[in-house]
Amino acid sequence: MKISKRASAVAPSATLKIDAAYKQMKASGIDVVGFGAGEPDFDTPEYIKAAANEAISSGFTKYTPASGTEDIKKAVIMRIKDRYGIEYNVNQAVISNGAKHSLYNSFAAILDPGDEVIVISPYWVTYPELIRMCGGVPIFVKAYEENSFVPLVSDIRAKITDRTRAIVVNNPSNPCGATYDRDTLIGIADLAKEFDLYVIADEIYDELVFTESYTSFPTISEDAKERTILVNGLSKSYAMTGWRIGYTLSSPEIAKAMGSLQSHMTSNPCSIAQYAGTVALTGPQEDLKQMIGVFKKRRSLICSLINDIPLISCKEPTGTFYVFPNISGIIGKSYKGKKIGSSIEFADMLLTNELVAVVPGSAFGSDDHMRLSYATSEENIIKGLARIKNFCAELV
Amino acid sequence: MKISKRASAVAPSATLKIDAAYKQMKASGIDVVGFGAGEPDFDTPEYIKAAANEAISSGFTKYTPASGTEDIKKAVIMRIKDRYGIEYNVNQAVISNGAKHSLYNSFAAILDPGDEVIVISPYWVTYPELIRMCGGVPIFVKAYEENSFVPLVSDIRAKITDRTRAIVVNNPSNPCGATYDRDTLIGIADLAKEFDLYVIADEIYDELVFTESYTSFPTISEDAKERTILVNGLSKSYAMTGWRIGYTLSSPEIAKAMGSLQSHMTSNPCSIAQYAGTVALTGPQEDLKQMIGVFKKRRSLICSLINDIPLISCKEPTGTFYVFPNISGIIGKSYKGKKIGSSIEFADMLLTNELVAVVPGSAFGSDDHMRLSYATSEENIIKGLARIKNFCAELV
Repeated sequence: MKISKRASAVAPSATLKIDAAYKQMKASGIDVVGFGAGEPDFDTPEYIKAAANEAISSGFTKYTPASGTEDIKKAVIMRIKDRYGIEYNVNQAVISNGAKHSLYNSFAAILDPGDEVIVISPYWVTYPELIRMCGGVPIFVKAYEENSFVPLVSDIRAKITDRTRAIVVNNPSNPCGATYDRDTLIGIADLAKEFDLYVIADEIYDELVFTESYTSFPTISEDAKERTILVNGLSKSYAMTGWRIGYTLSSPEIAKAMGSLQSHMTSNPCSIAQYAGTVALTGPQEDLKQMIGVFKKRRSLICSLINDIPLISCKEPTGTFYVFPNISGIIGKSYKGKKIGSSIEFADMLLTNELVAVVPGSAFGSDDHMRLSYATSEENIIKGLARIKNFCAELV
Repeated sequence: MKISKRASAVAPSATLKIDAAYKQMKASGIDVVGFGAGEPDFDTPEYIKAAANEAISSGFTKYTPASGTEDIKKAVIMRIKDRYGIEYNVNQAVISNGAKHSLYNSFAAILDPGDEVIVISPYWVTYPELIRMCGGVPIFVKAYEENSFVPLVSDIRAKITDRTRAIVVNNPSNPCGATYDRDTLIGIADLAKEFDLYVIADEIYDELVFTESYTSFPTISEDAKERTILVNGLSKSYAMTGWRIGYTLSSPEIAKAMGSLQSHMTSNPCSIAQYAGTVALTGPQEDLKQMIGVFKKRRSLICSLINDIPLISCKEPTGTFYVFPNISGIIGKSYKGKKIGSSIEFADMLLTNELVAVVPGSAFGSDDHMRLSYATSEENIIKGLARIKNFCAELV
């Protein structure tokens, strides 16, 4: 029987797939090292768990407003005000089942069939899929490694047409680990104003920034704020990936549209997770600071180990918990008589022969790279990189 | 700035809106009686809460497979096998953020623009919205009160075109409280086979059946099972509305398509809710039986009170926790000099003058009815119906 074009066209999330394969090998007792994780390897902090227990025991187990409780909306707004000095009202917030859901709502609220959305490449795998699901067309603009994976505003301008509706700005960016400089963001905001575009500012990794200066997109100007759908969530910052709490802050009109869509599509995200999320945002932020410190240390470790391997190189990324090393020196070489023709072949052979799981760059639109997550222990980082080094030593 | 056609066309859920208005009045101290609730007025059973606490304390707070854990899939499959004697495999189950999400996945997986879906009217408000969101066209087939709101197979046949893709069979049905007899279901299955259609069998209220014979759609035949996307969830049966766990059982192909869509749209439903849901399905079912007994008693009470009011009438519904009384005797009459022209005007005037919140039938496609939920105490039922009686006594 017929499956819709939308469903036939979609590929299941490559990163989730690789992480699942790793977990399955691990569970069956294989000594595999996984660099695929898209989530912190920390447990959710205790004060957040205590809040969830409170929600459960007090019977906060019923429907909430479809777009989220007033309490969590206020907590989100307070966080953004405290952190970035910009103000939103409750009618501008929508709380969803994770930031993926927030992104889906965003595209569903603004895209009609044939509308174009500019996506910076290398890109997170889910953007083009969601855009296509909503009838849109992803238009890729390449960001170059020599520019630290920050796109040139002129390259974005060159891709704008009369069908362009939005630009996705993922800052810090997954998979590149790049943070965008203020001038580039101002340039993008100017473009958005000139061509009357939305900006989908996905700042889910904004707590994981290892540089002094970070600019949140809607702080650029009042105009930028008005045309921005700011996407964020609690998964990465509070080690709450399983709980599924994402949010958007946008114009009241867009928030209303997204709230209406969500009221039919899913209704509210889990009431208990909303309650816990409210406390996560308003409670003590010590666990978070500690987590950031650990990630910073690992980042230095993984980068130095990578750069110790001939054929692979990477600059220290300034955000997220990913590194995106260049493996172009590997492509074309042979391992035990078998030629490595692509990043996928590299990842497959590495997994089979050295039991290391990495995500091939082609999943993100760049065959010259691989993504390694350092949301794993120092011990694993050392072990895994030693194996990659062994693998590379065999290449001819 | 432009909002998508999809988003412009959607109306926020009418039932959620009325329930929210009621809750707000209640919270501000007004003595309002609400018949809008779409959720049991019981707390989630203790053994399920205990399971959730266990999930939290043991750190089951991470991503799960996007389409749900193997454990909850197995629990769902076991329930259906125990209850209906039919078998599914794990690759046929998808666990979602509530049954609305399961329905959305279903339509998204099968509908291309212009595809038609047959919906029995009076219908639950969300069906036409979700169909339209996925580019489809809802085609309504009226079910008549004199047939206990069960549609005639010949009326369905008359609406089938070469664009028809699916028939939605909501059994027991919201808002009507009808359960479908086996012959009608066989007739629908035959039509589905003849015209190669999917059947979206929404059986979310299948625990709330007050008649001896109930037929779950996929039990009709092997062919019916293969073309059915069975939709259900834990919200209504286990008083778990806030937790958001819905599920589908379908062909492996459709399940795979829905799983891929969901892997990008939202990823997994809340990990803690999945863990609790697994225990809900496999644990002691005493609370559920007790809840059903209470609903049964209330159903008799509310129906006798309704039929005690001239101008309003209803037959005892055989399922759900809704009654759908006929108010056509009220439409056209006047209250304190103001004419009541529609079910919406009736609901508005009733709320303003007697502080009783009901959902007007027009929300479900029938202006001759109103929906009352008896997911509220006997005390409230008695008080609310006395007020409606007072209101009606004023009509001229």
